[in-house]
Amino acid sequence: MAKQYVDMDTLKFLLNQVHNLSEVLEKERYSDHDLDSMDLFLNSVKDFSDQELFPYFKEMDEQPAHFKDGKVIVHPQVGVMMKKGGEMGLISGVFNFEDGGLQLPGMMHTAASFIQDAANNNLPGYTGLTMGAAELIVHFANEELKKTYASRMLTGEWAGTMCLTEPQAGSSLSDITTSATPTDDGHYHIKGQKIFISGGDHEYADNFVHLVLARIDGAPTGTKGISLFVVPKKRPAADGSLSPNDVITAGDFQKMGQRGYCTTHLMFGEGEDCRGWLVGKPHQGLRYMFLMMNGARIGVGRGAAAVATAAYHASLEYAQERPQGRRLNNAGRKDANAGQSLIIDHADVRRMLLLQKSIVEASLSLVLLASKYSDLLHTATTEEDKEKYKFLLELITPVVKTYPSDMGVVAISNGLQVLGGYGFCSEYILQQYYRDIRIFPIYEGTTGIQSQDLLGRKAMMENGKAIKLLAGEMMETMQAAMTFEELKPYAVKLGGKIQEVQKVLGFLSEFAKKGEYERFVSDASLFMEFFSTITVAWLWLDMATNAKQKLVAGDKTFSTEFYESKIHTMKFYYKYELVKTTGLAEALMDDEVLTIATDKKVFV
Amino acid sequence: MAKQYVDMDTLKFLLNQVHNLSEVLEKERYSDHDLDSMDLFLNSVKDFSDQELFPYFKEMDEQPAHFKDGKVIVHPQVGVMMKKGGEMGLISGVFNFEDGGLQLPGMMHTAASFIQDAANNNLPGYTGLTMGAAELIVHFANEELKKTYASRMLTGEWAGTMCLTEPQAGSSLSDITTSATPTDDGHYHIKGQKIFISGGDHEYADNFVHLVLARIDGAPTGTKGISLFVVPKKRPAADGSLSPNDVITAGDFQKMGQRGYCTTHLMFGEGEDCRGWLVGKPHQGLRYMFLMMNGARIGVGRGAAAVATAAYHASLEYAQERPQGRRLNNAGRKDANAGQSLIIDHADVRRMLLLQKSIVEASLSLVLLASKYSDLLHTATTEEDKEKYKFLLELITPVVKTYPSDMGVVAISNGLQVLGGYGFCSEYILQQYYRDIRIFPIYEGTTGIQSQDLLGRKAMMENGKAIKLLAGEMMETMQAAMTFEELKPYAVKLGGKIQEVQKVLGFLSEFAKKGEYERFVSDASLFMEFFSTITVAWLWLDMATNAKQKLVAGDKTFSTEFYESKIHTMKFYYKYELVKTTGLAEALMDDEVLTIATDKKVFV
Repeated sequence: MAKQYVDMDTLKFLLNQVHNLSEVLEKERYSDHDLDSMDLFLNSVKDFSDQELFPYFKEMDEQPAHFKDGKVIVHPQVGVMMKKGGEMGLISGVFNFEDGGLQLPGMMHTAASFIQDAANNNLPGYTGLTMGAAELIVHFANEELKKTYASRMLTGEWAGTMCLTEPQAGSSLSDITTSATPTDDGHYHIKGQKIFISGGDHEYADNFVHLVLARIDGAPTGTKGISLFVVPKKRPAADGSLSPNDVITAGDFQKMGQRGYCTTHLMFGEGEDCRGWLVGKPHQGLRYMFLMMNGARIGVGRGAAAVATAAYHASLEYAQERPQGRRLNNAGRKDANAGQSLIIDHADVRRMLLLQKSIVEASLSLVLLASKYSDLLHTATTEEDKEKYKFLLELITPVVKTYPSDMGVVAISNGLQVLGGYGFCSEYILQQYYRDIRIFPIYEGTTGIQSQDLLGRKAMMENGKAIKLLAGEMMETMQAAMTFEELKPYAVKLGGKIQEVQKVLGFLSEFAKKGEYERFVSDASLFMEFFSTITVAWLWLDMATNAKQKLVAGDKTFSTEFYESKIHTMKFYYKYELVKTTGLAEALMDDEVLTIATDKKVFV
Repeated sequence: MAKQYVDMDTLKFLLNQVHNLSEVLEKERYSDHDLDSMDLFLNSVKDFSDQELFPYFKEMDEQPAHFKDGKVIVHPQVGVMMKKGGEMGLISGVFNFEDGGLQLPGMMHTAASFIQDAANNNLPGYTGLTMGAAELIVHFANEELKKTYASRMLTGEWAGTMCLTEPQAGSSLSDITTSATPTDDGHYHIKGQKIFISGGDHEYADNFVHLVLARIDGAPTGTKGISLFVVPKKRPAADGSLSPNDVITAGDFQKMGQRGYCTTHLMFGEGEDCRGWLVGKPHQGLRYMFLMMNGARIGVGRGAAAVATAAYHASLEYAQERPQGRRLNNAGRKDANAGQSLIIDHADVRRMLLLQKSIVEASLSLVLLASKYSDLLHTATTEEDKEKYKFLLELITPVVKTYPSDMGVVAISNGLQVLGGYGFCSEYILQQYYRDIRIFPIYEGTTGIQSQDLLGRKAMMENGKAIKLLAGEMMETMQAAMTFEELKPYAVKLGGKIQEVQKVLGFLSEFAKKGEYERFVSDASLFMEFFSTITVAWLWLDMATNAKQKLVAGDKTFSTEFYESKIHTMKFYYKYELVKTTGLAEALMDDEVLTIATDKKVFV
């Protein structure tokens, strides 16, 4: 097991210097906090993660959550996560003071969750989903539901889940069939089954509050007839007692990774006695869910960034300790008696480490940026700001979900490769990260779905307004970078790439205009890779520019080497990663249509 | 579990039409065989794999090989593989008639092994290593060793292993320390330990014949002092009885994948009574090993191609059966009541399937091509042919090891993605393929090592003679393709890429000329990706040209749709995969040096 899973310096550099947390803390909503209190909070989360999360990471994989005799058995540390996490405000952090929250900026929640995810990605999901479910209740449900459920969720006494997927519908929510029949008593009878429910059942919460998508009898077909319900596992009575609510755990899903994080199959109303309470208005369920979805998607990107970060540190540690072979420089090649080199001194190993570093630090920067946009949106006082940050957040969210996930898989694969044969062995931790991360490109909307969202909706909103706003942000960074000779060439490169984005969008949008929607989005996944690679190039230029500014100013918050390494990694990213976009643009503007189904049989 | 794991039509198309097996069968060595007998042989291997390999694939993963009470416990099907495989000639196939072999072409061995690997990649390693060890004995050992060991290995009664790696040396064989002390009785005392020994011990072979690299006392340091020994687990006496030879299994390695294929840790001579017999001459061990290495590396490429092929068929099958969502064409978008589409009709899913198809079929073509070069080399009657095929085989071997392995990982990841959440679940088979394939870029020389071999040695041999020969082969295909209007643009593209290879090599070789070897090979892994992507583009043009010729000729061996699908997949490869080489060339010719170790600390 590695010793380090996160680099607090880089986290604080990104939080305080690159993304300027103090700009957010100035908002009235956060006036009870300051940089020092935020720093203390982060350090306490790190201590908690060191003590309660990281040490259990491997054994939670080796003793996976499982379904037995009608019960879901999880690792006892789940209880610690819920209870201590609840006490520390890890669930309630971003909620309003009056709802029992700490009124923390979303940036801080992201930073704190990032540390926990990196320490042990099998645990924070339990509290994270509880928080998400509570958010839905607090934002959209009536006072009674809020009073009954939310407060106990924020303390971690009760757990929350999101129940969307059904076996026959998968990602296609318009096809869900779980039914809700109104009664005269104000509640609904719920009937149906849900699959892939993370944290859906275990013995370390007194109750489970399921947020369930269902159709009220007679509702319109498709997505317009879906409502949201609170469906507790146990019904709370006025005296506080709990009685069963006909929610049965039918089984679980054994998985390749995240084996300590239970995934359940739930049945509602098999005994015709399952009650649900409508959240907000009928048929608005999907809308409510989607209003919370940005946060959930940022959460997935953050988790992926964190898992890949931990893997990077594990492979770096190995490379710094393992002697093998000799460097291919003259000293190493000409002297058979020379001692072995540490593998970190082999160029190809350094390439794999720098690739990881360039991916994981940019991924973290990306999720912090999205959280900042979210904070600035929610505290905006002018219509202009509100619109600006809404557009920026909407545009960047599918990228934030996807880049850390897809490139996290690549990063960890490189980390595993650094260890050679040991990377494949269960004794070393890389293989667990490799298995764990593979779910991130799938859940909370697959890469394919995110890509359609990015190209088909977000890039097209109001004639590309969001893209223009983001390009404006990029221009600002470029201007700052241009003041340094060392950074100029990279700023120029980025400028060229921004023009390429416009060119590609111009080419593709012609299909949309002609009504050929399927053709328009058929290569959306390529566009995602193209666009996110360029977005990340911007984030690296931003990091390098900040580092350069600090170096010039003689800032000693971090070491000279630390700042220089950011500039070095930026250069690495431009040489090795940004170049990919040339071929991607070529493919995106290729006329040939090869992936749209026709009568011609292709798979013979 | 999927129903199909291999496409016999594509295998036969590649074997008989694209790579023209009959050209090899015309050689005198193979005069006892003809196309019909070869076809029968392949079909019998397919039947064997259907019955004895494929059905046990999942359970071998679920009941992994493990070390218990000093013994290695493996799945009983290992016994069937050794015994029935031995009987069918799956071990002895390529050996001479007089050694008890079938004198099959290497192409046939590759085709037959490909089927077995695709059916269950946990089993053929047991016979494959036995074959490899027997080959070393037959080629380099004296008659007595050959008589004592080889015949029993070819029948599968005795198993063989390759013992190279030691804990402190890893891939750096020059650092191995296992010792061999000569005795007056003709044998040596062996002492040392070896790790990562595949198939190193189990209860389904009467004896184990370990081929061990060790240093004779007083031998030169480095790779020039390594000798090869036969070290049996049990010493055979003249009367056929077996007695222990002080070879102890110290433990095993539990792994992320290939869990049914045991990986052991062996100790030789802990009781000072381990005897080894020298193979060939002293200090020539590494040379012997490397003469066999091409075959072993082709074997790894073949295995990777096979695993990715099986995964492709599993994901294709799922996509053809699973309804979800609606197509994004006008019919699907405008009618909420329209029935669900099969996911194979979604463009992004088709893209993922075509990507897999383009990778796995080209990988198979690549390993068959290498086997053909090997056959033509070993049956060459002129010096010119001998030289030609030696150069081609040497050049292509690192590519054959690497492309199917690295891109097999990518292919299977896409296959898993096709299944969405189910892809991550243990109930479905994709996750097993995903875990199994990850070892292929590591064992038998990692991608980094293969890349250094390709750029640092193979591409440079005699001023790039091998590259020129391969370019000549590519030109022939291009000329044939140019006769068809439909294929012309692709032939032209390939021509441009061949020029790009020359340009990149010209740029890089300047560093070699200046003595900057470390800089020369520092981006060897990028060169590997660049060069192998172009090589595969050639193979696809070759497949498409063959298919086009058959279509024009009205050949009915396979259906019109089959031939057309090859052309379609070629076009896909050029649009989506070949474009990557533009950015790779850009990076390879970038002046910036970022991965070579300096005094500057980068990982802070």
